[in-house]
Amino acid sequence: MTHSDAPYSATTFAVDPIGRIESDYPDKFGIPRQPGLAKAARATLVMLPPYDDPLTIRGLDAFSHLWVTFIFHRSPSRWTPLIRPPRLGGNTRVGVFASRSTHRPNRLGLSLVELVAVDTSQGVRLQIQGHDLVNGTPVVDIKPHLPWADTPDSNQAGYAEEPPDTYPVRFAPQAERFLDSRRDGNSLRELVVQVLAQDPRPAYRKGAEQRTYGVRLRDVDVRFQARLTEAGAMLLYVTELVAGSS
Amino acid sequence: MTHSDAPYSATTFAVDPIGRIESDYPDKFGIPRQPGLAKAARATLVMLPPYDDPLTIRGLDAFSHLWVTFIFHRSPSRWTPLIRPPRLGGNTRVGVFASRSTHRPNRLGLSLVELVAVDTSQGVRLQIQGHDLVNGTPVVDIKPHLPWADTPDSNQAGYAEEPPDTYPVRFAPQAERFLDSRRDGNSLRELVVQVLAQDPRPAYRKGAEQRTYGVRLRDVDVRFQARLTEAGAMLLYVTELVAGSS
Repeated sequence: MTHSDAPYSATTFAVDPIGRIESDYPDKFGIPRQPGLAKAARATLVMLPPYDDPLTIRGLDAFSHLWVTFIFHRSPSRWTPLIRPPRLGGNTRVGVFASRSTHRPNRLGLSLVELVAVDTSQGVRLQIQGHDLVNGTPVVDIKPHLPWADTPDSNQAGYAEEPPDTYPVRFAPQAERFLDSRRDGNSLRELVVQVLAQDPRPAYRKGAEQRTYGVRLRDVDVRFQARLTEAGAMLLYVTELVAGSS
Repeated sequence: MTHSDAPYSATTFAVDPIGRIESDYPDKFGIPRQPGLAKAARATLVMLPPYDDPLTIRGLDAFSHLWVTFIFHRSPSRWTPLIRPPRLGGNTRVGVFASRSTHRPNRLGLSLVELVAVDTSQGVRLQIQGHDLVNGTPVVDIKPHLPWADTPDSNQAGYAEEPPDTYPVRFAPQAERFLDSRRDGNSLRELVVQVLAQDPRPAYRKGAEQRTYGVRLRDVDVRFQARLTEAGAMLLYVTELVAGSS
């Protein structure tokens, strides 16, 4: 038995951030439950010293997608064996390792994101999109996506075989005027639609109701309700957009 | 600015193993350079206390594939900005974050593996295959694979668009007899073929040569050479199989 085969169950490994996320999502609430569900979501992965040497990412711009390993830094370090995935309506419990819950041992997250641009004019800044990362997220690793290694020939995905349902999104006149007044109105509209289409309300709220919810996207408070159409279908209705602090 | 937006570049996160790998690969040498390249490779992921509660994996058996996040515990903690990927012949250097090199900051690895069986008769033991994990590897997270979230619509994969080339594998008579004598002869043969087909020699050795190499698989020393056929094509030739200690 060599030293590296020795028991190490008591070993703790130290993980240092190599970068930090600057993102459209100032808060956890509203963030799509997987990356790729809101393709309009943009962010910058800012490399931290000493990892901000442009050599560290040489050749990365030839890859379209990256795996980002990060820390769920706003989740508590406590964990429980069972969690309630939103996909199951918030009532059924599955094991924490059978889910991608943010409340998990080691608080490690994994997201597949699209790499849009690389800026090495001052340190290293990676422009990414289609992410699900809250502002300030510490990144601990980046790896290139390899389609032939990362796509199984066949697969089964338990309770999550398909992407979640999405709903239509409509805007009140005030919200339309607000978007028209913004330089980033088009991309903000796209982001609001993609985020609300997922119905970000808690899982046990799945019918239409009177209550107004708020989600922050960029520097904007997005206030919305779940409503029923005359035909009885649900949609998400943006009642108001309010400029706030980011 | 809330406390969680505060700078944390000095923060180090602690990561504890949740499990440990018992694997067909006692050594680093010979392990395929991505998971899935040797589908015959079997391993057991043994959950460690307190994560060995069967509740933690409830529902996991309905997923066919898992993402395993682990520590490259046999790689040094030192890193360099540039590495030489075997795919580029060992001469061209790319950034460490444009590769999946084992020599990287935080030593974090990520493998997509197939889940074959779940045993909760005593603690939790997950049977996996198609892995690339050396025996004793500390596992720090498990997440289910979600095809719709983990497969980009389109992608580019830089210098690694396709799986690496593979080569034919042939066995000397002694090696054939050795396999015939083993209870696990069939699965061992399959594993030897899949591992050698990748040509596990160092990247700068790519022609046929006299030298005999050795790779350990399970408890067996596999001795092999690269040879040329009469037509001038390369193959990997198993000169001898020797029972050794695992």
